[in-house]
Amino acid sequence: MNLKNLGIGLLSIFFAVSCGKSEKKSGSNGALNKSHAEQVYVAPGEHDDYYAFISGGYSGNLLVYGLPSGRMFKEIPVFSQFPTSGYGYSEETKAMLNTSHGFIPWGDLHHPDISQTDGVTDGRWVFVNENNTPRIARVDLETFETVEVIEVPNSAGNHSSSFVTENTEYVVAGTRFSVPFPQQDISIKDYKGKFKGALSFIKVDQETGAMDINFQLMMPGFNYDLSHPGRGQSHGWFFFTTYNTEEASTLLEVNASQNDKDFIAAVNWKKIEEYVANGGGEMMPAEYAHNTYDHHTHVGKSEMKKEVRIVNPSDVPGAVFFLPTPKSPHGCDISPDGQYIVGNGKLSANLTVHSFPKMIKAIENESFDGEAYGIPILNFDETLAGVVENPGLGPLHTEFDDKGNAYTTFFITSEVVKWELGSWEIKDRKPTYYSVGHLTIPGGNSRKPDGKYMFAMNKITKDRYLPVGPELEHSAQLYDISGDKMELISDFPTHGEPHYAAAIKADKVAPNSRKIYRLDENEHPYAVKNEGETKVVRDGKTVHVYMSTIRSHFNPDNIEGIKVGDKVYFHITNLEQDFDVPHGFAMIGQNNSELLIMPGQTKTTTWEPDRVGVWPFYCTDFCSALHQEMQGYIRVSPADSDIELSWSLGEE
Amino acid sequence: MNLKNLGIGLLSIFFAVSCGKSEKKSGSNGALNKSHAEQVYVAPGEHDDYYAFISGGYSGNLLVYGLPSGRMFKEIPVFSQFPTSGYGYSEETKAMLNTSHGFIPWGDLHHPDISQTDGVTDGRWVFVNENNTPRIARVDLETFETVEVIEVPNSAGNHSSSFVTENTEYVVAGTRFSVPFPQQDISIKDYKGKFKGALSFIKVDQETGAMDINFQLMMPGFNYDLSHPGRGQSHGWFFFTTYNTEEASTLLEVNASQNDKDFIAAVNWKKIEEYVANGGGEMMPAEYAHNTYDHHTHVGKSEMKKEVRIVNPSDVPGAVFFLPTPKSPHGCDISPDGQYIVGNGKLSANLTVHSFPKMIKAIENESFDGEAYGIPILNFDETLAGVVENPGLGPLHTEFDDKGNAYTTFFITSEVVKWELGSWEIKDRKPTYYSVGHLTIPGGNSRKPDGKYMFAMNKITKDRYLPVGPELEHSAQLYDISGDKMELISDFPTHGEPHYAAAIKADKVAPNSRKIYRLDENEHPYAVKNEGETKVVRDGKTVHVYMSTIRSHFNPDNIEGIKVGDKVYFHITNLEQDFDVPHGFAMIGQNNSELLIMPGQTKTTTWEPDRVGVWPFYCTDFCSALHQEMQGYIRVSPADSDIELSWSLGEE
Repeated sequence: MNLKNLGIGLLSIFFAVSCGKSEKKSGSNGALNKSHAEQVYVAPGEHDDYYAFISGGYSGNLLVYGLPSGRMFKEIPVFSQFPTSGYGYSEETKAMLNTSHGFIPWGDLHHPDISQTDGVTDGRWVFVNENNTPRIARVDLETFETVEVIEVPNSAGNHSSSFVTENTEYVVAGTRFSVPFPQQDISIKDYKGKFKGALSFIKVDQETGAMDINFQLMMPGFNYDLSHPGRGQSHGWFFFTTYNTEEASTLLEVNASQNDKDFIAAVNWKKIEEYVANGGGEMMPAEYAHNTYDHHTHVGKSEMKKEVRIVNPSDVPGAVFFLPTPKSPHGCDISPDGQYIVGNGKLSANLTVHSFPKMIKAIENESFDGEAYGIPILNFDETLAGVVENPGLGPLHTEFDDKGNAYTTFFITSEVVKWELGSWEIKDRKPTYYSVGHLTIPGGNSRKPDGKYMFAMNKITKDRYLPVGPELEHSAQLYDISGDKMELISDFPTHGEPHYAAAIKADKVAPNSRKIYRLDENEHPYAVKNEGETKVVRDGKTVHVYMSTIRSHFNPDNIEGIKVGDKVYFHITNLEQDFDVPHGFAMIGQNNSELLIMPGQTKTTTWEPDRVGVWPFYCTDFCSALHQEMQGYIRVSPADSDIELSWSLGEE
Repeated sequence: MNLKNLGIGLLSIFFAVSCGKSEKKSGSNGALNKSHAEQVYVAPGEHDDYYAFISGGYSGNLLVYGLPSGRMFKEIPVFSQFPTSGYGYSEETKAMLNTSHGFIPWGDLHHPDISQTDGVTDGRWVFVNENNTPRIARVDLETFETVEVIEVPNSAGNHSSSFVTENTEYVVAGTRFSVPFPQQDISIKDYKGKFKGALSFIKVDQETGAMDINFQLMMPGFNYDLSHPGRGQSHGWFFFTTYNTEEASTLLEVNASQNDKDFIAAVNWKKIEEYVANGGGEMMPAEYAHNTYDHHTHVGKSEMKKEVRIVNPSDVPGAVFFLPTPKSPHGCDISPDGQYIVGNGKLSANLTVHSFPKMIKAIENESFDGEAYGIPILNFDETLAGVVENPGLGPLHTEFDDKGNAYTTFFITSEVVKWELGSWEIKDRKPTYYSVGHLTIPGGNSRKPDGKYMFAMNKITKDRYLPVGPELEHSAQLYDISGDKMELISDFPTHGEPHYAAAIKADKVAPNSRKIYRLDENEHPYAVKNEGETKVVRDGKTVHVYMSTIRSHFNPDNIEGIKVGDKVYFHITNLEQDFDVPHGFAMIGQNNSELLIMPGQTKTTTWEPDRVGVWPFYCTDFCSALHQEMQGYIRVSPADSDIELSWSLGEE
C-alpha cells in the first residue's frame, strides 16, 4: 500500500527534466521580464503584497506569512502552550486552553478561514479549528491574538471546519469521526446506526465576532471530511464531503474504500435556522467550554456550557440532501459564483462537479435514488454539472481564480492541475515537490478570488532543502498564475504541519493592525498605572507582586521576606507606550514559562521557591542598551523565618 | 532614559535616504552583475550554501536556517516544551527538562556555538546555553536532536556561555548574575563580597561529545556577560567580559554604569586543568541535573549529581588576570589568529582592543595596577593593542572575515561597522533596521572565518514587515561582505528572540544528516519490531498499549476494556523505514501533547480517560492518500465494569 512512494516514483519519471533548474525565466506571465528571483524578492524596507494565514497543524498554532516572499512574520498561539510568550502558562491565558476534559496543552489546527462580508474576505478575524479535542477559535486581526475558543460537543476529530458563510453569519464545524450519541459504553462493533456525526452551526455576532452554537445537526455515522459554504446563488446552503459511508469501524484503509460513491451532504442552513428560531430542535445536555480573552482586562475566562440544541435532519424536510460523489471525496469546494460544487474524490479517476441550479431542480423534481437514514439521496446524473476526465490521482482540494479557472491538487501524482469551469478542460498541469495536500489562492474561497499567486502545501519534503535529520519541516511552493500557464517561482519551508491556508490582500488588514495596548485602557485587576503603584502584598502563604517594567528597570527590583513554601504571583505591567518595546520576565528555577509583556499589558506568572537563598530575575527581551542591567533579586528565607516583606523601588 | 528611541531617531536622520529602495544593484562585490534578488534566491530544487544555527532566545529552542535564502528549516526543541513533536510532554523526553528545581517547561536559549577541531568548526555538535535556570545543551548534527543537557550549579543567568575551546576540549559557561556562595539566607544589601560569580569549565568527550563539569572557578561578584576562547597563539586561555564591577545590587541601570572601566577576565584554563588534575580545588555539595538522550533507546534519562569541584582563583597563581576595559563591555571577541581580544564596551565612546602577546608580556613583567579580590589587574596601557576611535554608540559584538577585517554591531546607532585589525581604521559602516544585537559570519568565531556573508540580528523590528499587531518577530539582515563595502541584500524575520548564531558551510554538515532511525537498532523497552508484536497489557489500573503505525493503519486499531480511572500508556513504534514518513498520534481529550514519531522510533504518551464512551484516535501527520482513514477507537467503560481487555489488529 505504498501510494506515497508510488507518487514520488511517478514524479521522478514524469518531471525529472523540469526539476529545480528554473532560476531565470522571462515571464510569459504578468510579471514581464522579471526573473523568478525578482518576482519573489521583497527588498529591505518594502512590504509583501499579501498576508497568508497558514495552519500549523500539530503545532496547534496559526502562522502568518507574507507573499510573494514566503517569509514567516508570526506564530500565533491558539490551541497549544507557547513558551515564547507564556501563552497557556500565564495565569491570564491558561483559561484559553480549558475544555470539558480540563486543561489540554495541545491542539491540532487545520483550516483557517477569513471572515467575509458579502462573500468577500474582510480581514477582521481568522477562524480556525482544532481537530482533536473539537474546538473553534477566533483570532482578531487587530491584535493578531486568539480572543475566543469554543468547544464543539458531541464531536470527535473536528475536521470539516471552520468555514464561514458569506456574511460570517456562521462558522461551521463538522465532526470527522462519528461517535455514540449520546456518548455511552457500547461496543465499537455496534457502530452502524448507533454512531452519529454532528455538524455544528456556530452563530457569529456580526459586530463583535462572538461565537455561540446555534444548533447541531445530528447526521448519520459517516466521516465528515471537509466543507464549504454556498455563495451568491447558493448562499444559505452549506456542503460537506463524507467518506466511510460504509460505516466501517475497523481497518478503514480497506473497509472505508468499498463504495463507488460516497456523498456530499447539502445543508440548507437558512431553513434549519428558521426551524430553530421557531422553537425547533431539542436542548440536550452537553458540557463544553467557551473561553474568551479581552484586551482591556488582558485576562482569559473560561465558562462551561451545559446544553446544546440538537436538530434531527429528518425533522426538517427539505433541509438536507445527499449528492452521490465518487469516491471518498476530501475537499468540497464552491465556485466563486456559487454555481458549482466540486467533489475531490480522492480515490476517483475523475473529478466530479455538481451544479447548484441542477441540484435545486432535482430537489423540486424529487429526483431521488433512495435515502440514507431518512435523508434523500439525489440522483447522480440529475445534479452532475460535468466531469474533469483523468485529471491525475488523488485529488484533494480545488480553489479558483478570477478568470473562470479551477486549480486542483493531486496528492498521489504530486501536481496541481488547472482546468476550466464549464468546459471542464484541462489547461495546464505542474508538478509539486512532493505529495501536495491543499492549495491557496488569496480569496480562492470567496466570491472574489485574486488571480496572481497560488501556493501549494506539500506533505512530503525529503530533499527540497538542506537536510536536518529525520524530522523535516513541510514545504510550500509558490506559483505565478497570472498567465495561461502556472509558473513555479519559489519553494519555502513552513512550520508545523500546514494543512490549509487563507490569504488576503495586505491593504485589507495592515491599516487596522494595533501597535500597543493603551495603558489607560488596562483593566487588569492587578495592573499598575505608574511606578508609584507598585507594591508587594502578602496574604497568608500567597504573595502578590505588583511589578512594573520600563526601560531599563523593574519596580520593585529587590524583594526580601519571601519564604520557602510561598506561592508568589508576579503581576507585571509593561508601562511602555511605544510600538515594539516588549519586556520579559523570568526567575531562576521557575516551574513555569517566562512572560513576554507588550506595552500597556499586564501578565502574571507564578513561582514557588523551593529553597533558601537569593535568586535573580531579569528582563528576557533585549529592550535597550542597558537591557543587561535590567534585573533584580529575591531573597528567600526559611518557611519559619520572621523576616517581614520589604522591597526596593528601582526608580520612581 | 530612552536610548532606544534615540537610536531610531538618529537612524531616521542619518539613513532615511538609503532605506529600502535597494532592490537592484549591480555588484561591486563578488556576486558580479547579480541583483540582490538573484543573490539571495535559491531556486526550487537547489540548496542553500550555509547552515545558520540561530538562537530562539525566549522560545527556548534552536532554529536552523539556510543562507543566503534566510529560510527556516527547523525548530529544534531544547529547553522548552514543544507541542509540535511532543518534546517535553512525551514520557521519553520529559527527563530532558528536569533540573534540580524539578521539571521546568521553559528556557531562555542564547548562544549557539559549533564544535571545533583545530580551531575550525567541524559540524558535529552545536552547544547552546540556557540563561535562566543555568544549563548547557548539546544538539547532535547527525539527528538534529537535543542529546544532552547539563545543569550548571552555583550560577544564575548563565549568559557568558556556551563557547567551545579550539578542539572542543571544553564548553565554557559563565554566570551573569552573581549569587551568594554557597546559597544562603542573607540580605541582598550584603551583596559586596558575599556574592560570587562561577565560571564553569565543562569537559567534552572528544569522541562522544558527552559533557562533565571539570571545575568551577569562583570569581568575584561581578556580572559576567560574554566570553570567547583563545585560539592559535592564545589557545589555552579563555576571556570573559564583566560589568557591574561596582557590585551594585539595586538599580543597575544607573549604579552599574559608574566605573570608567570594567574588566575582561583572562583565564588560563590549561593551568587550572593541570592544578585540578593534581588534586587541586575542593569537591563541594551541589545538586545539578545531567540529562541524556540516546537514539537507540529513544529514551531520555535524568541523573542528579551531588557535588562539583570548586577552584578559588587566588589558589592558582598565574591563572587569572583582569584586563581593564571601558565600559560595561558586552562581547568579548578573539581574532582568528588569536592575537587580539576585542572588548565591546557598550557605554564606551571607543572600541578597545587588547593584544594577547602584550598581555603575556605584562604578566611576565608583573605590570599590575592593583588587584581585585586577589586577582591581579593588568595595566591598561601595557595590554592595549589599539583603539577604534568613535566607531558608533553601543558596541555589542565583533566577528571577523578572512581578510583581516572586523565587523562590530552598534545597538544605539543601529549599524554595523567594518574596521581593519592592526590599523584600527574604519573601512565601512552600514545601517541596520533596528538596534542590532549580535552578528554572525560563518566561522566568524574560529580560526577560519568565511568572507562571503554576514548577518545582523536586530532587536527592534517595527515597520520592516507587514504589521502583525503589538507583538512582532525580530528581524535579521543579510549583507554581502565579499567586496570592500558591505551590501545589505535582504531582510528575513527570525523566530523567538535570536541573540546569537553560528553558521557553517553546508558541506560540513549535510553529508552526515541521518534520514531514518533503524528499526533493527531500536532498543526502546516498549518497542515493537513488527505488527505481530503489538498488544495491550493491563497491570492494575495501568494499561500499556504496544502499538505500531505504518501506512495507513494503527495496530491495534480498536481497543475495548479500558476503564475510567485507568492510566493508559500508548507506546507507539513507527515501522516505516523510508525517509520523511512520520506518523502522529492523538486522542480526544488527552491532557497531554500528541506524539510525532519518526521512522524507526518509539514514543510514549499517556491518557487518563475521564468519562465513559467510545473515543477515537488518529494519525496527526498527513502520511498517505489514505491518511484520513488512519484511525481507531477506544471504548471506555465504567471503573467497576468487568469487560475484559480486547483489541482488533488492523492488519498483520
